[in-house]
Amino acid sequence: MGITVVGSIAYDAVSTPFGERQLMLGGAAVHFALAASFFERVHVVGPIGDDFAEEDLARIGSRGVDVSDVERIAGGQTFFWRGVYGWDLNSRETLETRLGVFEGFEPKLSAESRASDVLFLANIQPDLQFQVREQLQDARFVALDSMNLWIDIARESLLRVIGSVDCLILNDSELRQLTQKPNLIAASREVLSWAPTSDRHRGPSVIIAKQGEYGAALVTRTGFFSLPAYPLETVVDPTGAGDTFAGGFVGYIAAHPDEELSDELLRRAMAHATVLASFNVEEFGTERVERLNGAEITERIAELSACTSFSAVPAALRA
Amino acid sequence: MGITVVGSIAYDAVSTPFGERQLMLGGAAVHFALAASFFERVHVVGPIGDDFAEEDLARIGSRGVDVSDVERIAGGQTFFWRGVYGWDLNSRETLETRLGVFEGFEPKLSAESRASDVLFLANIQPDLQFQVREQLQDARFVALDSMNLWIDIARESLLRVIGSVDCLILNDSELRQLTQKPNLIAASREVLSWAPTSDRHRGPSVIIAKQGEYGAALVTRTGFFSLPAYPLETVVDPTGAGDTFAGGFVGYIAAHPDEELSDELLRRAMAHATVLASFNVEEFGTERVERLNGAEITERIAELSACTSFSAVPAALRA
Repeated sequence: MGITVVGSIAYDAVSTPFGERQLMLGGAAVHFALAASFFERVHVVGPIGDDFAEEDLARIGSRGVDVSDVERIAGGQTFFWRGVYGWDLNSRETLETRLGVFEGFEPKLSAESRASDVLFLANIQPDLQFQVREQLQDARFVALDSMNLWIDIARESLLRVIGSVDCLILNDSELRQLTQKPNLIAASREVLSWAPTSDRHRGPSVIIAKQGEYGAALVTRTGFFSLPAYPLETVVDPTGAGDTFAGGFVGYIAAHPDEELSDELLRRAMAHATVLASFNVEEFGTERVERLNGAEITERIAELSACTSFSAVPAALRA
Repeated sequence: MGITVVGSIAYDAVSTPFGERQLMLGGAAVHFALAASFFERVHVVGPIGDDFAEEDLARIGSRGVDVSDVERIAGGQTFFWRGVYGWDLNSRETLETRLGVFEGFEPKLSAESRASDVLFLANIQPDLQFQVREQLQDARFVALDSMNLWIDIARESLLRVIGSVDCLILNDSELRQLTQKPNLIAASREVLSWAPTSDRHRGPSVIIAKQGEYGAALVTRTGFFSLPAYPLETVVDPTGAGDTFAGGFVGYIAAHPDEELSDELLRRAMAHATVLASFNVEEFGTERVERLNGAEITERIAELSACTSFSAVPAALRA
């Protein structure tokens, strides 16, 4: 039982057409943990600096998230990202990235974090991801996110860690870049065909392509599934949407340890991921998800089902 | 009964990563008619030049499409478009457009074309669209497509014709451009709020945003529906996909004259539109849809349903 996540714990400065925040709680591990905490106990592994407020640590831990493996580096500065979004929120520009305590970070996992049966490797340097993955050799489900930077500068390391996980979660453009295949299905099948890193590993069997405002697609060896984003009239800040999605997806799987990893289970997980992400983007940073409750999630799952369903009655055709 | 479509009948020269065609049958009215002909008898209105082959006219008419309002302009040249697609088929560049017989075109409709109860105004100059719309005042369902060019250079004319139709079908980027609203729902609601052009018109009540490889969304005053594209491992040529989609959508509605224009009916129409478009892109131009049969459509409707369905059973949540 339990989910371990390794990734960034950050302060973000964000500007969108709807406003801005100068110093807000963020980071992939934080967004992931807040979402996944609806489903299972989460253990967060990652570094923070002297500047990281105790009250922000308490916010991460509010839904029973274990922050004992959040390592405070004396004399260090918390990871910082500053970015600005364009008018339709589909483009964003990074204005500043300060690695701070992430330079030289070496993940140290407590016995409890190592005992989780589910692991999420958020987007960090792929050798660090692999190092953590090797500390949870018995995990029954391991998922990984990455980004274009690592495809560009650390491809071999990235391929090694991908071959050691069960599930790859990438933006669709990154999946194309990784495989050099422009078609989503072909790109996914390519990754599904890659050999495991070693006999000890299973290799990827679940591919998720995140498609931003359009939703996400799931490709396995046995099926394809596509789900649009939950329709929102106002999106305020997409920061962290992908990690919140991952938190909903991985969290749902963690909460169903006795179910086989079937396409049917994965689809339900996709629906919960989509709904969690839809709340994330309604306000800045973690603001909305921190206030979220289970009833709101349940209600939106039903709404998502309602706005994606149609009757497949065949028409009378003339030929 | 019957569907009338006005729009281009063209020769296209297309280059994609999968090959090229130097002179292939195309045009919005042609793609629309071939798709809609599975559902109802279609009357095509549009001009061709001396160069247009009789055998191509026969191809358009093969599934009972009425081509008697296709006007051959003596001494004229058929509309010609040349374009090239990028590696992922999401970008395309127009290399050449020759209006030919479309310059000075004045639509002339036979009594039969005027008697149709459903009308599709494919993407042409909006005053021409309005002129045709006024000749089918009693049509029970009128849909319209347009493009960025007309938003840029003929906005007032475009707004007039939009206020005279029931259904607006646009690319999502064009819907944003038209309304200056970046959000799809907000943009759609904006158009739904526009007043009818006159007391004789109803004004738009159905908005469809085409989203290319991601599918399409439907917004009405009572609901939202989103449908991904049918998953294909190989897409050869997207030319005409939008008009084929429109043909499936409008055709389905035309074939159900006794049903109220409910969200439920519109969703079924969207599914048929999506499936028709998926066949269109599998080969160049009209090649695949010309060979298509009803059983293939019916089969793919079931597959589309299968790859978009999930069980909305609520999860046990921790908060």
